Amino acid sequence: MPYVNIKVTREGTVPGAAATTPEQKMALIKGVSDLLFEVMGKPPQSTFVVIDEVDMENWGVGGVTVPEYRQQEREAAEGKLK
Amino acid sequence: MPYVNIKVTREGTVPGAAATTPEQKMALIKGVSDLLFEVMGKPPQSTFVVIDEVDMENWGVGGVTVPEYRQQEREAAEGKLK
Amino acid sequence: MPYVNIKVTREGTVPGAAATTPEQKMALIKGVSDLLFEVMGKPPQSTFVVIDEVDMENWGVGGVTVPEYRQQEREAAEGKLK
Amino acid sequence: MPYVNIKVTREGTVPGAAATTPEQKMALIKGVSDLLFEVMGKPPQSTFVVIDEVDMENWGVGGVTVPEYRQQEREAAEGKLK
Amino acid sequence: MPYVNIKVTREGTVPGAAATTPEQKMALIKGVSDLLFEVMGKPPQSTFVVIDEVDMENWGVGGVTVPEYRQQEREAAEGKLK
Amino acid sequence: MPYVNIKVTREGTVPGAAATTPEQKMALIKGVSDLLFEVMGKPPQSTFVVIDEVDMENWGVGGVTVPEYRQQEREAAEGKLK
Repeated sequence: MPYVNIKVTREGTVPGAAATTPEQKMALIKGVSDLLFEVMGKPPQSTFVVIDEVDMENWGVGGVTVPEYRQQEREAAEGKLK
Repeated sequence: MPYVNIKVTREGTVPGAAATTPEQKMALIKGVSDLLFEVMGKPPQSTFVVIDEVDMENWGVGGVTVPEYRQQEREAAEGKLK
Repeated sequence: MPYVNIKVTREGTVPGAAATTPEQKMALIKGVSDLLFEVMGKPPQSTFVVIDEVDMENWGVGGVTVPEYRQQEREAAEGKLK
Repeated sequence: MPYVNIKVTREGTVPGAAATTPEQKMALIKGVSDLLFEVMGKPPQSTFVVIDEVDMENWGVGGVTVPEYRQQEREAAEGKLK
Repeated sequence: MPYVNIKVTREGTVPGAAATTPEQKMALIKGVSDLLFEVMGKPPQSTFVVIDEVDMENWGVGGVTVPEYRQQEREAAEGKLK
Repeated sequence: MPYVNIKVTREGTVPGAAATTPEQKMALIKGVSDLLFEVMGKPPQSTFVVIDEVDMENWGVGGVTVPEYRQQEREAAEGKLK
């Protein structure tokens, strides 16, 4: 009876989307449930998967929020190109 | 100083409600705090309870989202009746 | 299909115990499952409860670890008695 | 590669704010990342911080929700003044 | 930069094992990281996976601990055979 | 009444230590509690901090366990030196 929690930033990762799409959520849930069955024999009926979408300004990495982190990455990439 | 996290799907479970009601939240908080006092002697003043309501399409079981899982259960029940 | 996580410090709360006893764990699991059924109609078969026991030096409150916090409380209580 | 989760009630703690402000979130993320570097040598680039704001009626302490808990504290304080 | 937490009961699921094996852990970590890349384009370098193994007596389902739940299932299965 | 959970790999980060030391735990607890007071005015008495040490083979990044990830990093660094 596994419990899996997936946390991702709330943002679109396919064209036109501003958040995780229903199709992506379904694919994550199916993929994780299948994985636990294949690797450990856990029946999907007893696997719970909970997806949390976290606002980007609530997620930090590198000591800054995700939007600021990405901005820094873009500036570093542009700096290298000059 | 226990910490308890309760995760439920965001949906109504009483007539007319589309989510957990304030009364239900109060009952969960009181019930869990009382339980920890009765079973382990933990004073309610130092017990934290956090309730998370999770969108149904973000919760998976049986390899599918909760709405799809319930649909499968309904169809299986109807199939048996035929 | 609720998921409940209960975190308590790893310590005995009944005579002779140095940790949560099997009986206490059973009582917590039954109590929480019953509560979710009574308050929200959730069938116990689909309620998961996970108990985490946390070493006391890994739990902080008041800016210090639990053992130090308790020591401060004892000293404050003794101070009042003088 | 530490992972830190900070849960606070969703409410303003500075004048005019009804929730944690962007500046506060940035300060929490920077502060926690710096702390893990100073105490344990963890590079901020590999530290994730996730801030969860929890509705006050979903947070319990003392066996009641936070709004009710605060109300009790106010009444107790007023009682002492009389 | 996803964060995934997988909780399973601490028990062997392959012959001779009393817990999740190192190979199973590696397969879970690789499988989840690949899934997040395929479904959402998340680079594995920024995906954290944390596996928690939970003692069976600390995991509840059906209002009882896992060992007791399995015992009930066995007895129900034997009852059907009679 | 904030709740903070800090997860780190179980390993020594100072000479002679094979895990987070008691001094490091105390510094993390104090530092986080002070931070929440400074940034948000939260009194330390109502801030809980829980530190989880996770076995390195239970923590994944880059699609592999932490020990394997570090080995890859070492080999990449050595490759650059040649």
